[in-house]
Amino acid sequence: MTDQDQKKRQTSAWFSKLQGRICHAFEQLESEAPASLYGGEAGQFEKTPWQRGPEQGGGVAALMRGRLFEKVGVHVSEVYGEFSEEFRTQIPGAGTDPRFWAAGISLIAHMRNPKVPAVHMNTRYIVTTQDWFGGGGDLTPMLAEQRSDDAPDTIRFHASMKAACDAHDPDYYPKFRDWCDRYFYLPHREEPRGTGGIFYDRLNSGNFASDFAFTKDVGKAFLDVYPAIVRTRMGESWSSDEREQQLIQRGRYVEFNLLYDKGTTFGLKTGGNVKTILSSMPPIVKWP
Amino acid sequence: MTDQDQKKRQTSAWFSKLQGRICHAFEQLESEAPASLYGGEAGQFEKTPWQRGPEQGGGVAALMRGRLFEKVGVHVSEVYGEFSEEFRTQIPGAGTDPRFWAAGISLIAHMRNPKVPAVHMNTRYIVTTQDWFGGGGDLTPMLAEQRSDDAPDTIRFHASMKAACDAHDPDYYPKFRDWCDRYFYLPHREEPRGTGGIFYDRLNSGNFASDFAFTKDVGKAFLDVYPAIVRTRMGESWSSDEREQQLIQRGRYVEFNLLYDKGTTFGLKTGGNVKTILSSMPPIVKWP
Repeated sequence: MTDQDQKKRQTSAWFSKLQGRICHAFEQLESEAPASLYGGEAGQFEKTPWQRGPEQGGGVAALMRGRLFEKVGVHVSEVYGEFSEEFRTQIPGAGTDPRFWAAGISLIAHMRNPKVPAVHMNTRYIVTTQDWFGGGGDLTPMLAEQRSDDAPDTIRFHASMKAACDAHDPDYYPKFRDWCDRYFYLPHREEPRGTGGIFYDRLNSGNFASDFAFTKDVGKAFLDVYPAIVRTRMGESWSSDEREQQLIQRGRYVEFNLLYDKGTTFGLKTGGNVKTILSSMPPIVKWP
Repeated sequence: MTDQDQKKRQTSAWFSKLQGRICHAFEQLESEAPASLYGGEAGQFEKTPWQRGPEQGGGVAALMRGRLFEKVGVHVSEVYGEFSEEFRTQIPGAGTDPRFWAAGISLIAHMRNPKVPAVHMNTRYIVTTQDWFGGGGDLTPMLAEQRSDDAPDTIRFHASMKAACDAHDPDYYPKFRDWCDRYFYLPHREEPRGTGGIFYDRLNSGNFASDFAFTKDVGKAFLDVYPAIVRTRMGESWSSDEREQQLIQRGRYVEFNLLYDKGTTFGLKTGGNVKTILSSMPPIVKWP
């Protein structure tokens, strides 16, 4: 096995392992959620393996429609093949050789309780004639009073992401936080999508082990902080007016993902797994 | 007044007149809708004038949130100015002189009753160093059994559009019907948005009077056929399962408008009136 094959095997194995841990943590929360606020049975993840095509890889989509987690997808994939002519020039290292390999984990959670923020996390490892890591995690509180830098959930989320960053490079957090703010922004609304987090791409410091360790730490930080935020908030009741605010705020999520998100539009326009990509859409949305 | 100014005045006046007639017809239907199926008061249009900026024109947004018409926008605009560097090369006749003038009417109706199809209609007149008409109308039935070429509402809608076309040129209907089918298509779903209608653009036969008459006939055909379809269907009751199907089908509408529709994406990315553009979003949508 080549050195590069080893890296592929390690990263792909990590994304799968992280998927398992996150699904477990989320199912745990599902079962702990107070019955007084959340009717019905606790949900469980349905895992659906899919193939991209012969010799092109595939993935495992894990989707839960629960009582606390109204809709959450935690997907892993490992795909490979050749970029089309159109995309070769757009992807680093693919101009001379169109072959690629990519693995990653992608998560979006839409919660029933408008007081529990929605969240997104995604990390990936991509190999062309170059190789790099990318990803991040960001929080999207639904209620106006929570959508500020100094709201408690936001402070907590950022602190966790900062700690993961600081353990590797003091420049990471300020740089990746700013990148996140610029990326998750709706210019037509002049609004940020949420209250940020971190976003990084094309990370290759020259030291694979260290970059991989950082990417693992981002996943672990997410696994540490988001369930903690959910556990803090899930016992709070909500009004129908707050639910309404949430459904409207979700519309911004849809607008961002379909108008601007590179992962979504790239995936949909290049024959990605449509069902998996669009499983990130909120379960119910209003544009009143 | 120059000849070109006359054309602008006539077209803009027509779009406003058509807006008035359509709003009147829709309010009439709102008031006729049977109370046994549609609770609450009959809706009325709220008309909101808006300005694009100093010396840049504006429009009148007419929006009704009713009991039969769950959400319907019938908007007119007359805007002018200069295209940005970026768009000059993309718009016919704007390469040498960036000034433009554009007027039009744009309508999308989302109905409460899943048995009543949603509908879209838009016609416009655009002037750069060239000038042309564009537009069309198309039907989007919500229930699977209505989404075929030989469903009654679809046959009726097409017959009306065909008559408007045939009165001007026997080639129009087949050409504009095909154009509509190609345009309102979701490649990622491999699904048409609806059951078609007509779509045309850059229409300039060399005879303004005739092209304008055709564009007026498209508007009149719409005003003739869509209220008739609504009147036929609005007395039919529906099940919660059919309502669910409708809310899911609306998600395709959102996907199309944000991923592919040139009017929407162009408008949002070039400083259009965001509120008016996004008033076409369905009031409530599900991605279960």
